[in-house]
Amino acid sequence: MDDHGLELRTTITGEGMLRLTLDRVPLKQPGEGELLVRIEAAPINPSDLGLMFGPADMDSLARDGEALTARIPDRAMGAMRARIDQPLPIGNEGAGTVIAAGPDRQDMIGRRVAMLGGAMFATHRLIAARDVLPLPDGASAEEGAALYVNPLTALGFVETMRAEGHKAIVHAPAASNLGQMLVRICKADGIGLVNIVRKPEQAAMLRDLGATHVVDSSQDSFREDLTRAIEETGATISFDAIGGGEMTSTILNAMEAVAQKNMDGYDRYGSQVLKQAYIYGALDLSPTVLRRGFGFAWNIGGWLLFNALQKLDPEVRARMRQRVADEMTTTFASHFTARITLQDALDPDTARAFNAKATGAKYLLTP
Amino acid sequence: MDDHGLELRTTITGEGMLRLTLDRVPLKQPGEGELLVRIEAAPINPSDLGLMFGPADMDSLARDGEALTARIPDRAMGAMRARIDQPLPIGNEGAGTVIAAGPDRQDMIGRRVAMLGGAMFATHRLIAARDVLPLPDGASAEEGAALYVNPLTALGFVETMRAEGHKAIVHAPAASNLGQMLVRICKADGIGLVNIVRKPEQAAMLRDLGATHVVDSSQDSFREDLTRAIEETGATISFDAIGGGEMTSTILNAMEAVAQKNMDGYDRYGSQVLKQAYIYGALDLSPTVLRRGFGFAWNIGGWLLFNALQKLDPEVRARMRQRVADEMTTTFASHFTARITLQDALDPDTARAFNAKATGAKYLLTP
Repeated sequence: MDDHGLELRTTITGEGMLRLTLDRVPLKQPGEGELLVRIEAAPINPSDLGLMFGPADMDSLARDGEALTARIPDRAMGAMRARIDQPLPIGNEGAGTVIAAGPDRQDMIGRRVAMLGGAMFATHRLIAARDVLPLPDGASAEEGAALYVNPLTALGFVETMRAEGHKAIVHAPAASNLGQMLVRICKADGIGLVNIVRKPEQAAMLRDLGATHVVDSSQDSFREDLTRAIEETGATISFDAIGGGEMTSTILNAMEAVAQKNMDGYDRYGSQVLKQAYIYGALDLSPTVLRRGFGFAWNIGGWLLFNALQKLDPEVRARMRQRVADEMTTTFASHFTARITLQDALDPDTARAFNAKATGAKYLLTP
Repeated sequence: MDDHGLELRTTITGEGMLRLTLDRVPLKQPGEGELLVRIEAAPINPSDLGLMFGPADMDSLARDGEALTARIPDRAMGAMRARIDQPLPIGNEGAGTVIAAGPDRQDMIGRRVAMLGGAMFATHRLIAARDVLPLPDGASAEEGAALYVNPLTALGFVETMRAEGHKAIVHAPAASNLGQMLVRICKADGIGLVNIVRKPEQAAMLRDLGATHVVDSSQDSFREDLTRAIEETGATISFDAIGGGEMTSTILNAMEAVAQKNMDGYDRYGSQVLKQAYIYGALDLSPTVLRRGFGFAWNIGGWLLFNALQKLDPEVRARMRQRVADEMTTTFASHFTARITLQDALDPDTARAFNAKATGAKYLLTP
């Protein structure tokens, strides 16, 4: 066994600089109940990028010796106080092969596993055996790399919808890997789903997957198309990863327009139909703008996988995990458009490219 | 008994004009369980103005014969579809004297009562006897005019706070009649309250009432003052009647700043402390702007008295009504700055003045 590994770490200095470095770290022998995994694949999710680059000015990305650096705008430093000068590891999830194990888990050596838990953008990860998902024989690391964040988020949307008494979902942007999983889940489960995409080719791709309601925000008829799709599905809950701008507001106003069609007369307070919107990402960091034409029966909240899972019954969570394992290569298959090494991540042009968060473009780190 | 009364009505025509008229309406004899009340006082609440003027361009207010008219901007007509060409009565609440009653409620004749239920901007109101609150002997109509909307809203905030597990409240704008009631309630009940006002003299007035935490949004130190007051009270729920602009966003960010002070380390998703904001009015009709620096544990919703009351246990509602009756001239006393007649309401300058919704300026209609 090697005695050192490499770990990608992000630091924001007190002087307002971001430093991304690939640090040599000593490898520890796994203790009781622990595994040492050689990481073979880890997806770069939008949720990783927030930690990786923080509010850095991406135009200022530059190489400084072995490090990738960028300036943090002064106005953004206040919110970074809690992480100043701390080198933080990155990477929510990944997959790899167990190369060492505690005395009680020697049976796991050589097994390929999927993992959740941070610090996955590294050559190795020490992890509790109970926190890994052993992959079926023959499964590749790439197939196992993204079995937590997107699959559980997509299933989580459906569970939140059920728990809060809604019957159909609006999702934006819908062409992402996560969006594709949601299309497959809703199709299999008979749940109405309104998919909002930003380009005609994304609409075509989702229709090929079997999506019934796809509306394209780049079209002039977007608002009418959205309203019609909401009417046809009865959707009263939405999940929006864009966050900034008017998407959530547009969805709520379309839901209210549908609700008002079913009202007997005018009510200055709007309809009584509760319209629920969740913001689960921040692809657009600009402010959320709400044009409040949707009455008073509405609710907007942050949606975070970890918090949502905690609200669910343990048996629901177990059912979700089992489904992900069973449908790994179908419902929950991810599609990656580029593969890069840990060293590549420190290249300014490469970093700018994977930080663009273009829907449909998905990077896989292969340490 | 007169055979006709007068009723203020608002109509939006298909041609995009608002018409406010004082219409002669036949008075009906009260049937079983009904009362006919001669209205003596009715407050003009912000919630009445939304119906009265809708999205009219107040600069275009003009007199057209007996009617007050204004133009509705084209872009606003879509949302008015459901009320086109319908003369709608106005006035949520009021007080007056019973002048006729159904055969079973003759005992009520001559009693002064407070009422909720719409169409109070009129000379008379036919109403179910069970929907009135008989006032104590000697109570004036002015004392009884505003015993529903503001008192139950202020008490409703406290009940919502309790039901959702918070311990202190942020309120904006806090110098209104409603805000003053909330100060008295929270003082009596030992509940932490952060009062946001917009002028130094409003801060002084609330402090005179016994408010401990008053912050003035016109001061340069507003954000720091707000954060400190939230820290001192532990407030994690807010009620905002402004609606437009950044007030709700500023409150949530201040709550998050306090929550982050108590965190062990950096978490890119922000604190786990649930921050709840309610928007209960629309004094500012411009869009709500959210600068999402408050993590993912947050929730913003519309708050409407009627909906909130329905969520409460009947015994809680009964307790609230009893308290309003008991503390009519103390906790729930309203202060009116101008008294106008129904005819006055059709004067363009007067209408512009009471529609300005200036905090602290409160109009009473005395038909």
